[in-house]
Amino acid sequence: MNTLIKNVTALLPDGAVSVVNIAVADDRIVSVGETPENFQAEKIIDGTAHFAIPGFVNAHTHASMTLLRSYADDMKLMDWLEQMIWPIEAKLRSDDIYWGAMLAAVEMIRSGTTAFADMYGPDMERVAEVVETSGLRGVLSRGLIGVAPDSEKKLEENAALYKNFHGAANGRITVMFGPHALYTCPPDYLRKIAAKAQELGAEVHIHMSETMGEVENCIKEYGKRPFAHVASTGLFDNGTLAAHCVHLDDEDIDLIKEYHIRVAHNPGSNMKLASGTAPVPRLLEEGICVALGTDGTSSNNNLDMLDEVQLVALLHKVHTLDPLAVPALTAVKMGTEYGAQALSLHDVGRLQVGNKADIVLFSMHGAAWTPCYNPVSLLAYSAKSTSVNTVMVDGRILMENGELKTLDEERILFEAQKVADRLTK
Amino acid sequence: MNTLIKNVTALLPDGAVSVVNIAVADDRIVSVGETPENFQAEKIIDGTAHFAIPGFVNAHTHASMTLLRSYADDMKLMDWLEQMIWPIEAKLRSDDIYWGAMLAAVEMIRSGTTAFADMYGPDMERVAEVVETSGLRGVLSRGLIGVAPDSEKKLEENAALYKNFHGAANGRITVMFGPHALYTCPPDYLRKIAAKAQELGAEVHIHMSETMGEVENCIKEYGKRPFAHVASTGLFDNGTLAAHCVHLDDEDIDLIKEYHIRVAHNPGSNMKLASGTAPVPRLLEEGICVALGTDGTSSNNNLDMLDEVQLVALLHKVHTLDPLAVPALTAVKMGTEYGAQALSLHDVGRLQVGNKADIVLFSMHGAAWTPCYNPVSLLAYSAKSTSVNTVMVDGRILMENGELKTLDEERILFEAQKVADRLTK
Repeated sequence: MNTLIKNVTALLPDGAVSVVNIAVADDRIVSVGETPENFQAEKIIDGTAHFAIPGFVNAHTHASMTLLRSYADDMKLMDWLEQMIWPIEAKLRSDDIYWGAMLAAVEMIRSGTTAFADMYGPDMERVAEVVETSGLRGVLSRGLIGVAPDSEKKLEENAALYKNFHGAANGRITVMFGPHALYTCPPDYLRKIAAKAQELGAEVHIHMSETMGEVENCIKEYGKRPFAHVASTGLFDNGTLAAHCVHLDDEDIDLIKEYHIRVAHNPGSNMKLASGTAPVPRLLEEGICVALGTDGTSSNNNLDMLDEVQLVALLHKVHTLDPLAVPALTAVKMGTEYGAQALSLHDVGRLQVGNKADIVLFSMHGAAWTPCYNPVSLLAYSAKSTSVNTVMVDGRILMENGELKTLDEERILFEAQKVADRLTK
Repeated sequence: MNTLIKNVTALLPDGAVSVVNIAVADDRIVSVGETPENFQAEKIIDGTAHFAIPGFVNAHTHASMTLLRSYADDMKLMDWLEQMIWPIEAKLRSDDIYWGAMLAAVEMIRSGTTAFADMYGPDMERVAEVVETSGLRGVLSRGLIGVAPDSEKKLEENAALYKNFHGAANGRITVMFGPHALYTCPPDYLRKIAAKAQELGAEVHIHMSETMGEVENCIKEYGKRPFAHVASTGLFDNGTLAAHCVHLDDEDIDLIKEYHIRVAHNPGSNMKLASGTAPVPRLLEEGICVALGTDGTSSNNNLDMLDEVQLVALLHKVHTLDPLAVPALTAVKMGTEYGAQALSLHDVGRLQVGNKADIVLFSMHGAAWTPCYNPVSLLAYSAKSTSVNTVMVDGRILMENGELKTLDEERILFEAQKVADRLTK
């Protein structure tokens, strides 16, 4: 299908903002600027007074956990996990995983997210089903906990997920291995995962150095800091997406560079859980790929990537006392282009010829966008994701003028609440 | 006029959430819970699946500056002021002050703000006009700069504003004196303001201890920290709303308590300008009234109080590394009840019998409110202000089902952009 987005204010890869036409043939952008004479549009979208950006990439989340939004907040981490989250998670069924991910898909599309890196399970094939149906791009991993009695089974599930879904849905689904963290995965288990990932050519998605306690315990137990410890198991050898990376020293940063590890920074979650502030300006200066994630809605409490763009721009200014830290354009790129890189999504994350047509249009009508001197500033510092009104992934329209095209939103909201009612009955 | 809000999920003053009917007669709440038998409603609002809270109180802003939204960002403070903000502000005309405040009014009503403390000028009577027309509650002060050649004239303007507007519009307009800051107001000028405020019985709205540089310079110049210095001029004697209060020591906090100073904390602005992190949990522990403000849109860049509620809840957790700091309910109270106290708005800020009917309804439909285990958590950590759909001030409906009732939104957006185009021509 050929689609033409006419007269839209677009964020170009070099950071410039320009009014252009964007032509899309099947799943790719074929022109940005003047439309080729021979281009026959089957559908025309009027982009007037809209701001087009590459879709947001949520580089770290646990989609089905949206079912637990507002279930437990303002608690200490271990009380929260042990008394609230783990007991209720134990009640989750396969259909719950499905409806939780469906609710997440509604929220992501509505707020302009076109791709997400998910770590959860069991039943991750139900999340794959949601990715397939919704039209989103999903990088799925089965959360692997080595200290659980069924750790081998989990690893097999992750391998099966890879074999069955990696590259599925026109490449919209890819699969990574999902070792939860070094404190839930003993070294032998990490080595097994590394070997299996190596065998299949799969990458790894893992929580790293989220809390100070994790770093201290790692040193105590293994005599090494987390990155050195995990590197020694071979887990980083095949490509790694590392979530959080809050507590880092020079040695950690050297290892991140050496292994070309991509970082998923989660400012909202790190703030809410009081985990600490990741050294993001330093990582960016070092040339490390730093993307943004929402984490799960139990620690955020939404999947709104524009919130994360705004938070990353604000948090690091006040943390470093430098008003020039993480300027607006950098924050937006972290939420889009760098996210695509972090997830190994090729030809995604930039509005340029040859790239996949993952495009989000914000309506620039309304007070938060007025007056308009600088759309990137307005996006990063003023707008709400509710001004997203059209979303395209792989050239397919998932939302148009605020209407979801692939999902039955009312049914999904109803089913998600029904699950929540059952879980807390 | 008698209005009945039926079957609404309401946040009660004790923090409980309950489904109730709220009856409003003229400008006051006359019942919360069961409706009195003799109550005759002329208008009924169906509150089903809506969350009612007292309207947000924006305790510190510069409303007409909305005209400068996105004009200059990601700059160092003095470069930003000297090269960008002051030159463009010098071009502002009386009509610009009006349209800027009108744009602010649209944004505030849409995002659930019912009262605001404004400091700007000249032509603050044009802002009073906007308060009158819009139906909002406004606490106005003329920004006073003693180092300017027309400092006496400014002071007279503030006194005239007080005489002409304090208590106007059924009490919806009140007036304070607005000394900008100790570094723009020499001690003699502060003494003059104090004397004039004392004479009229007016309170004072001032920026205090926003940056470390301000504190250091004050000590260098006057041999005292800011609160001790300003206290010595008598400025705090008649009631004070102090914006920012970022850099405080024990002596400052003692003076804040001694003079019953109310603090307007501006997390978004303090983060964006890299001013620092105010010791909010400590201030709250000390029993000090800490409200929330957006500051102007040049340093935020919006007037969205729900953003500030979310930021105050997140920022202080990560800053103190305490996940229990500023829990959801406290954050919401800072944005509502404590705001009303900070602005000396009597009988405002709580949904209780006898209070002014300043009520905001959020639609709880949609992913960000689903599932619903805890509406206060959803409000503080997940929702967007765009889910505000009905706003009432003094018993009058300013927005119903997303439609503004007192303002011509399209005209205002158009005029605001026109002003911006002229300013940058």
